[in-house]
Amino acid sequence: MRVKKISHIAVAGNDAEQTRVLYEDILGLNFSGSEPVESEGVTTHFFEVGQSSIEMLEPLNADTPVGKFLEKRGPGIHHMALEVEGLDAYVQKLKTAGIVLLSEEPKIGAHDMRIIFIHPKSTGGVLIELCEKSHPG
Amino acid sequence: MRVKKISHIAVAGNDAEQTRVLYEDILGLNFSGSEPVESEGVTTHFFEVGQSSIEMLEPLNADTPVGKFLEKRGPGIHHMALEVEGLDAYVQKLKTAGIVLLSEEPKIGAHDMRIIFIHPKSTGGVLIELCEKSHPG
Repeated sequence: MRVKKISHIAVAGNDAEQTRVLYEDILGLNFSGSEPVESEGVTTHFFEVGQSSIEMLEPLNADTPVGKFLEKRGPGIHHMALEVEGLDAYVQKLKTAGIVLLSEEPKIGAHDMRIIFIHPKSTGGVLIELCEKSHPG
Repeated sequence: MRVKKISHIAVAGNDAEQTRVLYEDILGLNFSGSEPVESEGVTTHFFEVGQSSIEMLEPLNADTPVGKFLEKRGPGIHHMALEVEGLDAYVQKLKTAGIVLLSEEPKIGAHDMRIIFIHPKSTGGVLIELCEKSHPG
């Protein structure tokens, strides 16, 4: 049961091309692909940086959590994701500590990871995703 | 000239103890110390995660950039920092591309790193710090 690394920093926006120009052309990060995640209502675009990535979240339509985030707050950092070992044990520990989660159990996210979100009201305003590989090794 | 890794994710807040409980006691990250950075008007608190860290920014007083951020937006993610090789070359490249920086030249930040910030209006709403070790090796 440990946090291995920052999995990704997620950035919400509507202009995938502007984002690509910044991270790939100007900063020189490797673009590693796009993937729709229907359950979250987004298309994800990944740029690799060290052992982590920057994930751009582009909403599938305005009536999605990220679409509403953009309408309310404009583009910007949406959440940070920490890759863990022992996600189910973390879920139990968080619940025991009275930390509010966005779902009862982990869901499947991009890259077939098991993911769960911690509510910002329990973290000092930061939406934190914990994620774990579905098939270790 | 390359981005090596995510140096840190910076989180602005006023409750260092709540932050410590979450990241150290509950998530199990190593707390690696606190450091005032007078030039930025903050005390920084670092929690290690993989090759990166989570940096809590606690304002020295309300009349600082982070103090004003908290008053306007409340606690939350403040910026992301990417560690690079070739910071001066990046500064030139960014200026040539018409990207807006928060200062003309890099300053000295926490851990004696040379740092410069890219304005959110040039990045899709994300305050991005580029940093480089002052004394490589």
